[in-house]
Amino acid sequence: MNEETDTTADVRDVVIIGSGIAGLSAAVYAARADLEPLVLEGPEPGGQLTLTTDVENYLGFPEGVGGMELIQNGKDQAERFGAEFTHGTVENATLEERPFELELSNGDRLRTRALIVASGASARWVGAENEDELMGYGLSTCATCDGAFHRGDDVLVIGGGDSAMEEALFLAKFADSVTIVHRREELRASEIMADRARDHEDIEFRWNTELEALRGSQEEGVTGATLVSHPDGYPSEKAANGVDVDRETVEVGGVFYAIGHTPNTEFLEGTAVERDERGYLYTRTDDAGRATTETTVEGVFAAGDVADPDYQQAITAAGTGSMAALDAEAYLETLERTEETTLEVSP
Amino acid sequence: MNEETDTTADVRDVVIIGSGIAGLSAAVYAARADLEPLVLEGPEPGGQLTLTTDVENYLGFPEGVGGMELIQNGKDQAERFGAEFTHGTVENATLEERPFELELSNGDRLRTRALIVASGASARWVGAENEDELMGYGLSTCATCDGAFHRGDDVLVIGGGDSAMEEALFLAKFADSVTIVHRREELRASEIMADRARDHEDIEFRWNTELEALRGSQEEGVTGATLVSHPDGYPSEKAANGVDVDRETVEVGGVFYAIGHTPNTEFLEGTAVERDERGYLYTRTDDAGRATTETTVEGVFAAGDVADPDYQQAITAAGTGSMAALDAEAYLETLERTEETTLEVSP
Repeated sequence: MNEETDTTADVRDVVIIGSGIAGLSAAVYAARADLEPLVLEGPEPGGQLTLTTDVENYLGFPEGVGGMELIQNGKDQAERFGAEFTHGTVENATLEERPFELELSNGDRLRTRALIVASGASARWVGAENEDELMGYGLSTCATCDGAFHRGDDVLVIGGGDSAMEEALFLAKFADSVTIVHRREELRASEIMADRARDHEDIEFRWNTELEALRGSQEEGVTGATLVSHPDGYPSEKAANGVDVDRETVEVGGVFYAIGHTPNTEFLEGTAVERDERGYLYTRTDDAGRATTETTVEGVFAAGDVADPDYQQAITAAGTGSMAALDAEAYLETLERTEETTLEVSP
Repeated sequence: MNEETDTTADVRDVVIIGSGIAGLSAAVYAARADLEPLVLEGPEPGGQLTLTTDVENYLGFPEGVGGMELIQNGKDQAERFGAEFTHGTVENATLEERPFELELSNGDRLRTRALIVASGASARWVGAENEDELMGYGLSTCATCDGAFHRGDDVLVIGGGDSAMEEALFLAKFADSVTIVHRREELRASEIMADRARDHEDIEFRWNTELEALRGSQEEGVTGATLVSHPDGYPSEKAANGVDVDRETVEVGGVFYAIGHTPNTEFLEGTAVERDERGYLYTRTDDAGRATTETTVEGVFAAGDVADPDYQQAITAAGTGSMAALDAEAYLETLERTEETTLEVSP
């Protein structure tokens, strides 16, 4: 271990990676347990919920609540009980020794007895031509952030799930027309969201169609998009296999990606924290087979979307955030008892 | 099957047993999925949270929220999306055939394709002499309900966990003195709650002590309590084994039980829904080992405290409520597809 960093001072009880709903709920619980948690706000402070205007299904708000408002409420609540917030992205985690050590992208090092990973999942990219160049210049993964820039435009939304419907409905407030581009003929979205999109007069669907390339420049923004389609769906795959597909370039002023998320767990590569093939963390069940938030490394807990490929709801993230803090608290108590015992039996 | 009840009309998609936080969150999600859920409000409508004054740790309310207020908010929210509420306690559940059939204590029968059990857990009793007679007459399981009746009284709180501390702190607003009676020398409560109780000038502790009997009558209310104690703890057990214990009768005007909860799952006795030795429901993990809310009977889901002996938080109940509704929705979709397929292959 690096001698310079090997001071027993400045070892935290709990560091929480991520300041979305899960991280905030963990922070409230950890702070109320007097663990003085440090919350690391990464490149997307507040997480996915800051990209949502109205949250209708988070229990407790009969008229709904703004995503940003809910996050701000949660942060105020955590700070009220003594949680500390700082900006920082974890580059590397050393979890073989205790305390754990985290290396941030600015070079800072943090040491902590328990770790709660609530780093969430980030929006996925399609892989279309020119997307690197045009991301942020008419191409976006966040309708609620960038929708207002597209008043009077024709825009595309890529995807077929709930978030694609949600983005389309939001964009329809600003854009002249919204076209949902989906590679299959059937939506993955829930009934209620799909119906809302279908019933909207400014929203259209392009079935069995995919985005192949974007047109435009950083000066002009997005000006067009090349779409491929095939009556049996999955046209890009078919084109790659030499099957003939229809190809059309449409004039659009904006393109929005809504094709899912990738968990932010790269910094755990090389550690003993096990992830599934998509990168989502596994959590253990206890002896009775009940769910806990502990990962495959003792003392490392996971909460929110980063360990939940299936539900990914604000309210479920808040729930697992609270569980992670309670699990961390119990772990730290065991650790203390163990340390005391070890001290007693030492010669 | 009883011919009279065998009508295909009036088969619900989802019935939710319980109107606490878990049931309400499930209702919000099920209603937004157009499943028109029916929520059965049992003998304790709104569940355990209605017995709590201030909820400080439910993410989204920086200044806290009243338990009753949170429940009312949740009910308004569920009704806004079309959830239906009715009073009813399930006596019997027939889960071997589809649709499931529920028999209510008033004799009504309900049929449903999917079932969400969110019936919670109810306060446990000590087993002290005269408790049957005096429950509701100075003996209570709910400080926030009955505390205001004890202005100027000396009262006892039985228990050593968070809820015991919470009840004691609440009672200290009204009572002259509050004594926490705990059978061991160490509290199960969290640090923050224990410190608050310890620091309160009107709260005292009786360690290694248990309540053996209550004095009083329904006319006078509780007037006294017999306590047993032993320096090594667990005095009742020791007394039962013939060990000498100290026995003292104290004058008190009220006694509050705060020794935990029993899940409300008796109506599932004789069904294939598996419970642990305390009665808590088991839920399945999926193929990837991730938690779901499905019980050991396909189509029957569990949410909230009834399947959670470990965390039992409002926010975790809200989280699993949402999961149960999403799981039920997915189950019903599979069911429909199966029914369609079966129809197609029929001669």
